Amino acid sequence: MKRTTEKNLMVFSGRAYPELAEEVVELLECGLVPQVARAFANGELYVRYEESVRGCDAFVIQSHTAPINEWIMEHLIMVDALKRASAKRITVVMPFYGYARQDKKHRGREPISARLMADLFKTAGADRLITVDLHADQIQGFFDGPVDHLMALPILTEYVKRKYGDQQLAVVSPDAGRIKVAERWSARLGGAPLAFIHKTRRTDVANEVVANRVVGDVAGKICILTDDMIDTGGTIVKAAEACMDAGAAGVIIAATHAILSDPAVDRLKNSTAMEVVVTNTLPIAQDKQFDKLTVLSIAPLLGRAIREVFEDGSVTSMFDGHA
Amino acid sequence: MKRTTEKNLMVFSGRAYPELAEEVVELLECGLVPQVARAFANGELYVRYEESVRGCDAFVIQSHTAPINEWIMEHLIMVDALKRASAKRITVVMPFYGYARQDKKHRGREPISARLMADLFKTAGADRLITVDLHADQIQGFFDGPVDHLMALPILTEYVKRKYGDQQLAVVSPDAGRIKVAERWSARLGGAPLAFIHKTRRTDVANEVVANRVVGDVAGKICILTDDMIDTGGTIVKAAEACMDAGAAGVIIAATHAILSDPAVDRLKNSTAMEVVVTNTLPIAQDKQFDKLTVLSIAPLLGRAIREVFEDGSVTSMFDGHA
Amino acid sequence: MKRTTEKNLMVFSGRAYPELAEEVVELLECGLVPQVARAFANGELYVRYEESVRGCDAFVIQSHTAPINEWIMEHLIMVDALKRASAKRITVVMPFYGYARQDKKHRGREPISARLMADLFKTAGADRLITVDLHADQIQGFFDGPVDHLMALPILTEYVKRKYGDQQLAVVSPDAGRIKVAERWSARLGGAPLAFIHKTRRTDVANEVVANRVVGDVAGKICILTDDMIDTGGTIVKAAEACMDAGAAGVIIAATHAILSDPAVDRLKNSTAMEVVVTNTLPIAQDKQFDKLTVLSIAPLLGRAIREVFEDGSVTSMFDGHA
Amino acid sequence: MKRTTEKNLMVFSGRAYPELAEEVVELLECGLVPQVARAFANGELYVRYEESVRGCDAFVIQSHTAPINEWIMEHLIMVDALKRASAKRITVVMPFYGYARQDKKHRGREPISARLMADLFKTAGADRLITVDLHADQIQGFFDGPVDHLMALPILTEYVKRKYGDQQLAVVSPDAGRIKVAERWSARLGGAPLAFIHKTRRTDVANEVVANRVVGDVAGKICILTDDMIDTGGTIVKAAEACMDAGAAGVIIAATHAILSDPAVDRLKNSTAMEVVVTNTLPIAQDKQFDKLTVLSIAPLLGRAIREVFEDGSVTSMFDGHA
Amino acid sequence: MKRTTEKNLMVFSGRAYPELAEEVVELLECGLVPQVARAFANGELYVRYEESVRGCDAFVIQSHTAPINEWIMEHLIMVDALKRASAKRITVVMPFYGYARQDKKHRGREPISARLMADLFKTAGADRLITVDLHADQIQGFFDGPVDHLMALPILTEYVKRKYGDQQLAVVSPDAGRIKVAERWSARLGGAPLAFIHKTRRTDVANEVVANRVVGDVAGKICILTDDMIDTGGTIVKAAEACMDAGAAGVIIAATHAILSDPAVDRLKNSTAMEVVVTNTLPIAQDKQFDKLTVLSIAPLLGRAIREVFEDGSVTSMFDGHA
Amino acid sequence: MKRTTEKNLMVFSGRAYPELAEEVVELLECGLVPQVARAFANGELYVRYEESVRGCDAFVIQSHTAPINEWIMEHLIMVDALKRASAKRITVVMPFYGYARQDKKHRGREPISARLMADLFKTAGADRLITVDLHADQIQGFFDGPVDHLMALPILTEYVKRKYGDQQLAVVSPDAGRIKVAERWSARLGGAPLAFIHKTRRTDVANEVVANRVVGDVAGKICILTDDMIDTGGTIVKAAEACMDAGAAGVIIAATHAILSDPAVDRLKNSTAMEVVVTNTLPIAQDKQFDKLTVLSIAPLLGRAIREVFEDGSVTSMFDGHA
Repeated sequence: MKRTTEKNLMVFSGRAYPELAEEVVELLECGLVPQVARAFANGELYVRYEESVRGCDAFVIQSHTAPINEWIMEHLIMVDALKRASAKRITVVMPFYGYARQDKKHRGREPISARLMADLFKTAGADRLITVDLHADQIQGFFDGPVDHLMALPILTEYVKRKYGDQQLAVVSPDAGRIKVAERWSARLGGAPLAFIHKTRRTDVANEVVANRVVGDVAGKICILTDDMIDTGGTIVKAAEACMDAGAAGVIIAATHAILSDPAVDRLKNSTAMEVVVTNTLPIAQDKQFDKLTVLSIAPLLGRAIREVFEDGSVTSMFDGHA
Repeated sequence: MKRTTEKNLMVFSGRAYPELAEEVVELLECGLVPQVARAFANGELYVRYEESVRGCDAFVIQSHTAPINEWIMEHLIMVDALKRASAKRITVVMPFYGYARQDKKHRGREPISARLMADLFKTAGADRLITVDLHADQIQGFFDGPVDHLMALPILTEYVKRKYGDQQLAVVSPDAGRIKVAERWSARLGGAPLAFIHKTRRTDVANEVVANRVVGDVAGKICILTDDMIDTGGTIVKAAEACMDAGAAGVIIAATHAILSDPAVDRLKNSTAMEVVVTNTLPIAQDKQFDKLTVLSIAPLLGRAIREVFEDGSVTSMFDGHA
Repeated sequence: MKRTTEKNLMVFSGRAYPELAEEVVELLECGLVPQVARAFANGELYVRYEESVRGCDAFVIQSHTAPINEWIMEHLIMVDALKRASAKRITVVMPFYGYARQDKKHRGREPISARLMADLFKTAGADRLITVDLHADQIQGFFDGPVDHLMALPILTEYVKRKYGDQQLAVVSPDAGRIKVAERWSARLGGAPLAFIHKTRRTDVANEVVANRVVGDVAGKICILTDDMIDTGGTIVKAAEACMDAGAAGVIIAATHAILSDPAVDRLKNSTAMEVVVTNTLPIAQDKQFDKLTVLSIAPLLGRAIREVFEDGSVTSMFDGHA
Repeated sequence: MKRTTEKNLMVFSGRAYPELAEEVVELLECGLVPQVARAFANGELYVRYEESVRGCDAFVIQSHTAPINEWIMEHLIMVDALKRASAKRITVVMPFYGYARQDKKHRGREPISARLMADLFKTAGADRLITVDLHADQIQGFFDGPVDHLMALPILTEYVKRKYGDQQLAVVSPDAGRIKVAERWSARLGGAPLAFIHKTRRTDVANEVVANRVVGDVAGKICILTDDMIDTGGTIVKAAEACMDAGAAGVIIAATHAILSDPAVDRLKNSTAMEVVVTNTLPIAQDKQFDKLTVLSIAPLLGRAIREVFEDGSVTSMFDGHA
Repeated sequence: MKRTTEKNLMVFSGRAYPELAEEVVELLECGLVPQVARAFANGELYVRYEESVRGCDAFVIQSHTAPINEWIMEHLIMVDALKRASAKRITVVMPFYGYARQDKKHRGREPISARLMADLFKTAGADRLITVDLHADQIQGFFDGPVDHLMALPILTEYVKRKYGDQQLAVVSPDAGRIKVAERWSARLGGAPLAFIHKTRRTDVANEVVANRVVGDVAGKICILTDDMIDTGGTIVKAAEACMDAGAAGVIIAATHAILSDPAVDRLKNSTAMEVVVTNTLPIAQDKQFDKLTVLSIAPLLGRAIREVFEDGSVTSMFDGHA
Repeated sequence: MKRTTEKNLMVFSGRAYPELAEEVVELLECGLVPQVARAFANGELYVRYEESVRGCDAFVIQSHTAPINEWIMEHLIMVDALKRASAKRITVVMPFYGYARQDKKHRGREPISARLMADLFKTAGADRLITVDLHADQIQGFFDGPVDHLMALPILTEYVKRKYGDQQLAVVSPDAGRIKVAERWSARLGGAPLAFIHKTRRTDVANEVVANRVVGDVAGKICILTDDMIDTGGTIVKAAEACMDAGAAGVIIAATHAILSDPAVDRLKNSTAMEVVVTNTLPIAQDKQFDKLTVLSIAPLLGRAIREVFEDGSVTSMFDGHA
């Protein structure tokens, strides 16, 4: 008995941020697979798909936002249910990769939680990952399988160029360890000059930062302060101040992942920054939005990547010319 | 270069219920390994041990209580940190096995989360498990390695026998599917008669329970209503009523795991039960305790099991004579 | 070089019960793949396929009947040969799952052979399992991959309803631990009352059963005694007697798996049961058949499941309305 | 809490050939671990150890004799039970490696059962193997872990040298593919001349052997016909005849593994061979023994290997000077 | 969203012997996938594919020639890059299997490098292997997956039969351990008589070979000396001399793999052999070619096998009638 | 039979740089395990240990220097031989981690060779790794097991402080992406000011660097140019020039790994640097040494780490106070 093989794209969404998944499937011109998902009284999670998923090419989207462990566990359980229901291939889509910051042992006897996450998803049944702007590129290597690592950089730089392209810009990294990202910005902004914030530590007291010093020349320029994520906003807001102290004409904060843990919103609102530009890899609650905040949608990027993966197209080609 | 090999017992505790772990190590006459454990602003968890754990025989205790996904994730991360810090053997101690109830697909396209948990712990680095009164004995088979499955039954029956042994007792299972546990109780209580609650379902409306009927004779007897866990308490409180309706002289509720999700406490307080006997495999907050509630400590059982495992003794022998 | 992908269903049968496989492929309107299978002089088994199996979607049917270890080993070897011959996907079809009863450690230092079987088939190369009425539903979780767990319940209840539907029925479980199955029967038989057999044990001699007592009311009713399997028939025949002693109007024995080890046939023939209804998940030799025995074919169920799996249809939908 | 680590040798025996295991433990001056082992009515096997095995260094001896699939399955189940009962290290001792002859695909779509066996034991929990005279040395590489490959050669050659050393000897391989073994014999017998039997096949009919021709000079010599195993004895008995036809003064048949499937005993008894020398890696039933048969015990070899493995000594050194 | 699945054949070549891969793709009427491949200054290798390989059916050809470790590593790295770039299936094509000779522990404390190679390729991401004339057939069993083991025998024998078929031929194995190959030759050459070279070792000095003696009758015949590979040529050239000394009319050397390490070429040139027939599974540099050397192309065999694998045809059928 | 367990340290060395291993074992007051290691004519490597290694705690040292693929393969083969010879635990010591620079996909369709290496060693049998100054800390997470990541920083900074501590120092990173290392240096040098080299790229031509600009103030200071490795030396020598151009008083180049591929030595000799300080994680041939080059030994660090690992001490404590 012979049949022509068909493949069937099915998109699934966890409960962390269904609006993003909705936006993605609208672009793909399909719908989300209906499911029952809930927590039991003691917090144990449950999911069940209401349509046959046998043989499908599954994309499971979940934002690793707070309560992050709950949403990661739901993500894992969704994958397990797909595996046991005979999905043909399971692609985990995590626009923000939870625990990415614990990507190494900073000191002895620490976990490497970012590797652990990769292994947990593999164990649950993930065949492949799609994610955006990893905290470190090496995290791709934590997963034993294909990882499509998307970049929000073109989205963010395009916006900044369009809005501020006619001004004198400088790209500033808030931390010495992340200058590579700033370099990519600089390349996309026509070679804008580069600077970084050097945290001077006191020599007599361990680990106490005494000053944030701008290394590089920012005087009279609009500083684009770039980072992969904004969590509590402490570092980046202090960096903005340091830029202004160093004579900057203004500061734009730009980041892919808007975690915005307290008190990030207060800090950013009250900061010297003119604008804060982020994407919606993570949901931003209504009460966390503020005037200076601009949120660009990541959904077109995810949608296009899912389509390319499904149709065996090229994801690499989406980032041609990437510096 | 030769050395005599030494083994070194080290006990670790997650933050879900440190009091239980403290009680265990006191019985073992050792201390908990000091650690730093905390959540970052976005909820990501972090742990670091403050002593060398290289080559140790590690026992990592965590109660899978609410917020259960957080504590399971902390448990996993603790195991990862131990593995990477060269612990020689890692035994995961979960007095209550989280997600044990999702031990099969009740319907199509569901996860088997209990198996997933076993695999996640294996992946993180667990060599073996110690747990108490699994929801189904088969869950032992979910873990690819040794599982020491402890029983709280002797502790609970001993207490009941001491207090109510001179009365006419019947053992009642609140659910047809769990009569095996009641049979074990019956054997330990000198062959007390057995009954179970049969949920009659309406034939015209799917899945709607119309009545709880006691199958078996309980008239004039003190009913010991036994289960492995009490979550919201709905089933067991209704079962108690059914017993009283069937002429029971009184009802004692006994269970190993006191999850006590809302509104369990209210239900139990206001129930017809004379006493509710549980163990502390899960923490019971001060405001969840009430007059009729008796909490027996599981710590001696855990402590003895850990000692036997460490010293290559016999855990089986701890349950000699188990029916 | 591009090609449209085709998939190709191929069905294979071990030598334990080829008649069942023949019946299945007839329904599927295809044939069994021709093979050479034999034992060498010292009992080592050998198999070779006589057609190319490269890229096929293989379904390998074997009944785990006596000599059971031999047939399981043949099943494993067939899977290994398929894996090495480049079958694309291998589905192991075991209508009766061998060793299912050893699904937990009843006491210390026992194997969990049901998990071992799952792992052996995985190791040999099985991608997925199809099986019928597992001894415990949890066994699904023993296999690391999709399991299609089929139910013979509709086949058996349909027959009973048609033949005895106009009588007063009660559903009786021969063992306290298996009342769940009886509950499902009850639901399908319009809410027939439920009972179970309680084995009273002597209190002075360990483990000696003194009496089988019916818990529940069966007087004047036709009792449907249900179990998943009949091995030597001891338990179920004694249960039938207990029902009659309790005033039953008659007893029908119904089970999915007819192992019928000696002296099951004698016991059943001479029992008080009016009829014994089983399926042919296992072969029943001519000399094991007797007047009261009714054998319903499981082949349509297996055939339909194989077709759904091959065509990426829904197996779950085959059991819609399953209580 | 610190302890000096102790290791504890425990030897287990399957039911295939307990006499051999008894002989081994006698030499080791310890006893076999008591166990319950039996088959259920439908042939499913069961085993339980009656002593704690926690932390032990386990050696599990089973002869892969007929009914071979049953004994292999028992062997696997014994390993599973040890793994789940926390044995520290599990060494599988298979004096004869079952399915060793299916060590490659002779034609397309065959299994490689010898590799499958290695994987099944690994999956069940085996850490290492001890075996004797593998059919092909490459089988060592099938197991993912240490294999101690013992040789019965010294035992057999020592016996032959003692008894026939003063005669003119030739070493003859019954098959072109196994001359390497004959070469080793030759080396140990002081460089005795070598010959082999060439099977001439008919050119017009596929695979039909027309004649056994001795290649090499055996006239007037006592031929030592050597092989790793004697199964039905057809090949070797014909080889003996060919030697006699070629003018040999006599023939001694020597092999490690005496499978002796029917009609081996009749063939050997009635053969032209003067003596048949084997070891007891497999049991030889009383009714299979005959006058010309000499059985040398393999137990001292196994015992010494187990002791060396337990004490971290050298097994290699047991075969110093091995050509 | 549904699509008909297409499969896409893509062939990749390492840098060891691109000419062979070119020949293969020409026969397949497709091209090699363009790539960047180079070594960094410190010898670390790098590869990048210049076309999307997502979803392709990849065949990666590399000859394991000198510098062999470099080319094996490049082969591994190519597989890793394909896995991470989402190739659907990866078939490693190694016309000569590197390290095949270390297929067992000849003595204690040696590696089994041939098994290690199989595991390394599996780890890198290989789903299946295609290889030619393994040193031992058992090596197929080293890889955990399908191995298509091709035979150059028909190519070589066809050539020999065409050229020398009218002469009196004998097939001679240069080593007692490899007579099986000679038997296959003999069968294909119409039952030509068989002989082998027996290395006599000195009895007083370990391992020193004193003489090569021809076992079997070669007088007046053209000897076809066959082996799987020619490395330094020492053994085979001495075997040719032994044949001539034993009265052979001439010697033809035939082997699949022409490693030709120094001083093979000199030895062969100056040998008594009339012709040396090999295939190009390994590249033969211009300066290694000599008059008597005939190189038959292996490309048609590889090409046909790749096509059959891609189209789910039968590779076994390519060798019908293989003795 | 009981024994006290002993552990036995054994150190093994590949042939890449035995002098380093010799230095290490001298400090440990033991010897290297004698072995036979060689390449066959076609480049295949072979190793055999000449002493029993059964049950030992093995440390296998190899420098991943040119020819790097050969030495890595030897390293893997050594591990395989140890695994198969029953070493109890295998620690791979790679002072320089080969392929560490390919730790991510810089562009699509590249390998992640650093992860591949981790997996290859795991597959071969490595239980744990010891390495020095990884190119990225995240590489620790590539290995599925404990990694002891040692730091040469204290050795290098101690030397620099002793020799140049009384001068005005600045720490300069030759690349924006590696400033973190410079920050650690700065902390250890009492808070010396920090700078980095910014590579300005042409905006009209892709990827062409037009200028190296020092970001930060180095005028009048002795610049410590730090990196983890020096390969061809191009980047660091240009960085030194940029420092001098920016008014530096002098430049000291310091790096852990001295790969020194051509033309590194010429560049460094002729550079403006006053001194080049490295360690001997990699061998530096006599003809690669030059006046300005100072080589500090890494052996004491490796020796101390091996001792701590063997004795279950703390490696973390070796780096107390690490910034």
